[in-house]
Amino acid sequence: MDSKPTSVVSQYNLALPIEQVRELATQWLREDCAGFDAGAVAAGAQECTATLYAKDELMVAGTLFFETVFEQLPPCTVDWHHTDGTFIEHRPSSQDKMKVPVATVRGPAHLVLRGERAALNAMAECSAVATISHKLMQTVRANSTTIQVAGTRKTTPGLRLLQKYGMIVGGVDPHRYDLSSMTMIKDNHIMAAGDIRTAVRNVRKIGGFSLKVDVEAESEEQAMEAASAGADIIMLDNFEPNELERVAGVVKQKFPNIVIEASGGISLDSIAKFCVPNVDVISMSVNRHAKMVDMSLKINAG
Amino acid sequence: MDSKPTSVVSQYNLALPIEQVRELATQWLREDCAGFDAGAVAAGAQECTATLYAKDELMVAGTLFFETVFEQLPPCTVDWHHTDGTFIEHRPSSQDKMKVPVATVRGPAHLVLRGERAALNAMAECSAVATISHKLMQTVRANSTTIQVAGTRKTTPGLRLLQKYGMIVGGVDPHRYDLSSMTMIKDNHIMAAGDIRTAVRNVRKIGGFSLKVDVEAESEEQAMEAASAGADIIMLDNFEPNELERVAGVVKQKFPNIVIEASGGISLDSIAKFCVPNVDVISMSVNRHAKMVDMSLKINAG
Amino acid sequence: MDSKPTSVVSQYNLALPIEQVRELATQWLREDCAGFDAGAVAAGAQECTATLYAKDELMVAGTLFFETVFEQLPPCTVDWHHTDGTFIEHRPSSQDKMKVPVATVRGPAHLVLRGERAALNAMAECSAVATISHKLMQTVRANSTTIQVAGTRKTTPGLRLLQKYGMIVGGVDPHRYDLSSMTMIKDNHIMAAGDIRTAVRNVRKIGGFSLKVDVEAESEEQAMEAASAGADIIMLDNFEPNELERVAGVVKQKFPNIVIEASGGISLDSIAKFCVPNVDVISMSVNRHAKMVDMSLKINAG
Amino acid sequence: MDSKPTSVVSQYNLALPIEQVRELATQWLREDCAGFDAGAVAAGAQECTATLYAKDELMVAGTLFFETVFEQLPPCTVDWHHTDGTFIEHRPSSQDKMKVPVATVRGPAHLVLRGERAALNAMAECSAVATISHKLMQTVRANSTTIQVAGTRKTTPGLRLLQKYGMIVGGVDPHRYDLSSMTMIKDNHIMAAGDIRTAVRNVRKIGGFSLKVDVEAESEEQAMEAASAGADIIMLDNFEPNELERVAGVVKQKFPNIVIEASGGISLDSIAKFCVPNVDVISMSVNRHAKMVDMSLKINAG
Amino acid sequence: MDSKPTSVVSQYNLALPIEQVRELATQWLREDCAGFDAGAVAAGAQECTATLYAKDELMVAGTLFFETVFEQLPPCTVDWHHTDGTFIEHRPSSQDKMKVPVATVRGPAHLVLRGERAALNAMAECSAVATISHKLMQTVRANSTTIQVAGTRKTTPGLRLLQKYGMIVGGVDPHRYDLSSMTMIKDNHIMAAGDIRTAVRNVRKIGGFSLKVDVEAESEEQAMEAASAGADIIMLDNFEPNELERVAGVVKQKFPNIVIEASGGISLDSIAKFCVPNVDVISMSVNRHAKMVDMSLKINAG
Amino acid sequence: MDSKPTSVVSQYNLALPIEQVRELATQWLREDCAGFDAGAVAAGAQECTATLYAKDELMVAGTLFFETVFEQLPPCTVDWHHTDGTFIEHRPSSQDKMKVPVATVRGPAHLVLRGERAALNAMAECSAVATISHKLMQTVRANSTTIQVAGTRKTTPGLRLLQKYGMIVGGVDPHRYDLSSMTMIKDNHIMAAGDIRTAVRNVRKIGGFSLKVDVEAESEEQAMEAASAGADIIMLDNFEPNELERVAGVVKQKFPNIVIEASGGISLDSIAKFCVPNVDVISMSVNRHAKMVDMSLKINAG
Repeated sequence: MDSKPTSVVSQYNLALPIEQVRELATQWLREDCAGFDAGAVAAGAQECTATLYAKDELMVAGTLFFETVFEQLPPCTVDWHHTDGTFIEHRPSSQDKMKVPVATVRGPAHLVLRGERAALNAMAECSAVATISHKLMQTVRANSTTIQVAGTRKTTPGLRLLQKYGMIVGGVDPHRYDLSSMTMIKDNHIMAAGDIRTAVRNVRKIGGFSLKVDVEAESEEQAMEAASAGADIIMLDNFEPNELERVAGVVKQKFPNIVIEASGGISLDSIAKFCVPNVDVISMSVNRHAKMVDMSLKINAG
Repeated sequence: MDSKPTSVVSQYNLALPIEQVRELATQWLREDCAGFDAGAVAAGAQECTATLYAKDELMVAGTLFFETVFEQLPPCTVDWHHTDGTFIEHRPSSQDKMKVPVATVRGPAHLVLRGERAALNAMAECSAVATISHKLMQTVRANSTTIQVAGTRKTTPGLRLLQKYGMIVGGVDPHRYDLSSMTMIKDNHIMAAGDIRTAVRNVRKIGGFSLKVDVEAESEEQAMEAASAGADIIMLDNFEPNELERVAGVVKQKFPNIVIEASGGISLDSIAKFCVPNVDVISMSVNRHAKMVDMSLKINAG
Repeated sequence: MDSKPTSVVSQYNLALPIEQVRELATQWLREDCAGFDAGAVAAGAQECTATLYAKDELMVAGTLFFETVFEQLPPCTVDWHHTDGTFIEHRPSSQDKMKVPVATVRGPAHLVLRGERAALNAMAECSAVATISHKLMQTVRANSTTIQVAGTRKTTPGLRLLQKYGMIVGGVDPHRYDLSSMTMIKDNHIMAAGDIRTAVRNVRKIGGFSLKVDVEAESEEQAMEAASAGADIIMLDNFEPNELERVAGVVKQKFPNIVIEASGGISLDSIAKFCVPNVDVISMSVNRHAKMVDMSLKINAG
Repeated sequence: MDSKPTSVVSQYNLALPIEQVRELATQWLREDCAGFDAGAVAAGAQECTATLYAKDELMVAGTLFFETVFEQLPPCTVDWHHTDGTFIEHRPSSQDKMKVPVATVRGPAHLVLRGERAALNAMAECSAVATISHKLMQTVRANSTTIQVAGTRKTTPGLRLLQKYGMIVGGVDPHRYDLSSMTMIKDNHIMAAGDIRTAVRNVRKIGGFSLKVDVEAESEEQAMEAASAGADIIMLDNFEPNELERVAGVVKQKFPNIVIEASGGISLDSIAKFCVPNVDVISMSVNRHAKMVDMSLKINAG
Repeated sequence: MDSKPTSVVSQYNLALPIEQVRELATQWLREDCAGFDAGAVAAGAQECTATLYAKDELMVAGTLFFETVFEQLPPCTVDWHHTDGTFIEHRPSSQDKMKVPVATVRGPAHLVLRGERAALNAMAECSAVATISHKLMQTVRANSTTIQVAGTRKTTPGLRLLQKYGMIVGGVDPHRYDLSSMTMIKDNHIMAAGDIRTAVRNVRKIGGFSLKVDVEAESEEQAMEAASAGADIIMLDNFEPNELERVAGVVKQKFPNIVIEASGGISLDSIAKFCVPNVDVISMSVNRHAKMVDMSLKINAG
Repeated sequence: MDSKPTSVVSQYNLALPIEQVRELATQWLREDCAGFDAGAVAAGAQECTATLYAKDELMVAGTLFFETVFEQLPPCTVDWHHTDGTFIEHRPSSQDKMKVPVATVRGPAHLVLRGERAALNAMAECSAVATISHKLMQTVRANSTTIQVAGTRKTTPGLRLLQKYGMIVGGVDPHRYDLSSMTMIKDNHIMAAGDIRTAVRNVRKIGGFSLKVDVEAESEEQAMEAASAGADIIMLDNFEPNELERVAGVVKQKFPNIVIEASGGISLDSIAKFCVPNVDVISMSVNRHAKMVDMSLKINAG
């Protein structure tokens, strides 16, 4: 049986900036037809309905992106059978490929087909990210009641909003949105600046009281230097689980309010090992670990 | 040893529309910094060099995307050690993760770091697509001297240019670019239109003599109807290998100039089975089968 | 009497990408008012109707462009009395300039006048192209049952969609839409590349199985070289009619499936001479031969 | 012999807003290649020169548009042999089509060909408008030393800047640029507003002291009402030459500072008849009367 | 008591180009949310009403900007209690800060709050400009029945439409909209060109009969030179009131139709002194003299 | 004497996203010339230098915005005599208006004048904000060694980047950049949500560990509820100084790590009174309190 989303998850799409979703939907449509869509004349303009199917096990995510594509193609409309956050399970009894209805699109046939590819590609990508996010959190929860997985900025160019949104739906922390929403001082910054203390002080002038500062550390020494320089978060990069637990403990003992983030080479297979004491956040490029999910849109027989 | 690209592959980036690459690069940079980049003040503006490393086995692709990101951040420049089409092999003797230099970026530290994420994410995505494309073609060539793999329109929204370009570099046929560059009459069109013959005739009015018409068929009967209606290509969807070979043979016997395309549920693991006689093209959503590849950019010690 | 369009022609506007038409309409409105439209205050906001008149003999084309301009100015609406493809004849009995109602626009006076110029200029341009296209095809049909006129890429910058659409409505083949929808190897490419055979092979790597290749030839020798290199279409440029027929025949004898395109210095006056055997397509910059047609929009007396 | 432009005409392109020309050039390039330009790989990247030829008698105009297209394709450069305002005459002695070099483009072959069509189409359109403008003014000057031809807002959507610029180069007054650069109260406004006097007073509130007010009149009565309401310009629409002279005289006698504009159904053939006393300006949709001019760009043999 | 606007002022927003207002509104919304609006999930999507209050004495202006922001956030709607041009007076009897309802916004709570800041900031800026404009004109009318205040191009970048509109609502002449809607020859032009007479003649070639020419003069000599060169307006820059009156008189005596504009260092405090005979227009950067006005939007208790 | 900026302040412009500054500069130029700039022909293209003068006491800010405008007008260049953060004092001995050179612009006269207004308006706005910011911080430092002034989101629409940057240069904390860079739960959210505790928990799901949460409180009770719900910052809105100090103290006693922000009705005149113990941040709409500063650009005599 499909689990129903809690009402809060289904409200997460309120957080999406609709004007930006609209702009993306328009770009996607434009990318898919530079000149004439001859197929539209074959399809014709008669009213039809089409069903969006999930054909793999997946967590539904991205409904607002999907329906905003069709909003650009009036009078098309979309009715949802499942909302963001619903997990659609594979039914083992079934012989054939699964095929669970997720939404019904209604409109003139040529417009339903005009929006099909852009809407499907966006929804499938978002759902794939939500699905891996959900699995990562399930694995972590089996090993820790508090650790939070967070997804980095290693998103596909142009799709950060959609992929970070998929993470949120799947229960993953979206980490910083971009360079301006939290300040990170990473290995490259330290290499360029030379000095963690000065770096932290300078970025505070720009970020002010409202932005947190996260400093990447590759050793216990760097971690302690960053903590005493006033970092809010220490990101321990590429530590083995044992060493991670030890260094995180040393830092927490002296700076109990500091958040400890573990990062580097973590996957769905290895994440359980990193669920060690003293770690608050495990960050990774969640979207890159997503496995494609199959969704299709089929016009229903009249 | 790394294989050097042939001169033709390294010239494929001449086919990229530079004004569109520039626009994408600007959008990607913009997506990564809505307000202030406080880290830039930490990094400072001193001149530095940074090295782009391949950290997984991969085929290099997307150099123009990478360098166009830095072109938006003058005076940054990029020197390439490998060009599009080079296959960088994993060296089994190495204990650590591989780390092969691919390019050197030069510029003020804060700008090198400003462009880092957008440039890396784009390059890694493009190289990942080229790598799977290369592997697919290697597998096919082991089974057929003529069959061509082609990548569908199921690309990530906003990234079609980059992903289709990755396919070309990897040796995969880019299939139609969008709805307007070849006309396809698919199951949904036939469901809406009712009649293959009328559909083909009508789309010819729009596409004219310059566009090919590709018709999806789910049975021998539909395939023969499409062929006699004047289709240039018949796409046999979701056929088992034996049946695929048989139906393709029936069509070719009567219409020897028609191109036969096989599609549906094909992956790197299963593609060899579909390399049967009478098939010209095997199409699949190549980009969705790509495995992420790790690339990094590190500022070099002064 | 005005001839009614066949139902297929009136459906051609389904092939137009609506998001692109909308973007053009917005640009056109913006071009026509950088600051304040003081005249709008003079006109006032009272509801009115206005009639779109054809004042010259013309083929109606571009209704979607016209109404999309007014769609940007809600609550304006447009009702059509004729659809794309209707040919409105000059009535010789009339003394005054002709004035045939084509549509009724309804909305607040200031918005009807706001959209007037952009909508009219677009519609008149599109109809002018459809009209010359219709006349060219009439002339060709009087001389050949099969030859198709095709319109080149020599369209007015920014107006390709509108002008190519006008051609389609008028019965002219839109030829390739842009550089990426069919590959042409022209005199300049051959001058740069040196060698037709290599050129054809290289472009196939990029265009793949889905794009046709059209090669320009200035001599029988070039035509045969192109044909044996695998071109789909040979464009015979600037041949005199006799020579055109002869060379086309030589090519067709050896390569019966190749399409022969004639081009160069052809106009409405001279096109009949080029309707010779063995030619499949006559291409020319159709839009540049269009004669302006007069259309006006007049507010009706309350 | 070609007449050299006076230095002032060649400076007119200083008045073009370069950021807008750049944006247009980018749109035009984008319109011409949605995906891959396979021909670019055939052409290759070797340095070449190409010559821009005038192949019809024409007045050169639009050099900034042409070279801004190539500025988007670095490292292409353009050297001019003639500047805006040069009139290139047909040489009757020549047997072949004329072919006068106007500019030399230098750059990698694939980029020269990438910009070719957009640059040529823009330049040919601008030169065609300058040429008809020049001819109209020659005809008017043969009949009047003071009357000025002015070109209306009936320009091709998206090309107002280019076409109005062609008019200026050819000696034609560009009339108002858009709805906001002079206020016109036309028949439709009067129909909607009911009352010329109120209309003029209201538009003054918006346009202020800096904008002129031009009122369209279809009778002597309306002309006098407009003049006494404070119009700066009276546009006498669709008057026969005799009546035009008479009514213009009546208005001028009472309001000697008012500018009289004649409009409606005027062409190159009929314009001489409208060169009557008391008329200051003859306005018409100059661009629609332009005859296409042939220009080509050919790569020079290495 | 609040004064009701005359019907004409309330119609001034008909002059605003709606497609440009829409584009501004979208940019403003985008500027206010790069990623996720987490607060939206807190607010929820339940229907609510919110009241727009004027909390300072002000002239209402910018209603179209305010409501166009909410038009981008359907299904939000706005009902107005006051229209552009209403002057809302401070009520001295009140102890607390004033709080006059101006409009009611209705919609889902998260969208009402999404639009709040952009809509308020725009409306408050426009009203502030209208308010200072109104006060400037009141002061001038106390000293002159004819002089008109005009606001220069020294507007905040990106906000010219909104600020010039505020001026119009407050009774101030918007002066030229941009470089292309009236030609000014200023001190810098004269320094570069050397010669007023040549400058005026050359700009007439571009501006034509429809644009006025305004010349800045810093001495009686320059003023007379400009007038005899054919300027429509002479802008006397930085003259003391006595000298302004004298020089204006000298010019008017010889050129009675010329408009005299006074400019330079004028403020609300000093403007009365510049209301001298022979001056027609007093220009200043009106928007920079605006005092912020407080407006707020509060959700009403359910 | 002018104070020289410390090296850190002069490096703050490294934090500006250059691609966004470029886009703004292009929009500003476009806003200032819809059609032709006739004055450019008067000015001519001869090389010149022009000096940017400060004519009021001010803190220099916005140099990158100013020079990016001219970067769009090649080959114009800018040399700076003062950098961001320099405070240019009024020299009381001077009789005339002050006139301190800040930069030298070099380029063709018509392009220097083309960029003049956009560059000046932007720079003057940014410097005005930096100047008031500097004064606010001076006043606060005279009363507290730790309190930080912060500027709210009440910026002018479209100018947030420029105005927040001016604040940073002047020493003011830029507060949150937009809705997505820190989460605030304000009175309107609480009115809509009903419950502070639920609101804080829900926004954490979206904002994650990287974003702080700031809750507006109008009473001691709300402040304590917000603090115990886990807010990082409590914003005490519209408290009188005494009450502010008392409530802040109560909160800090129980939650010593919480940041206390005071807001509501604070100006340069009243800010000293709010510098009370237990307050960490005083927030206000800094930009709205800026006083315009006069800057001019004058072409130097050849």
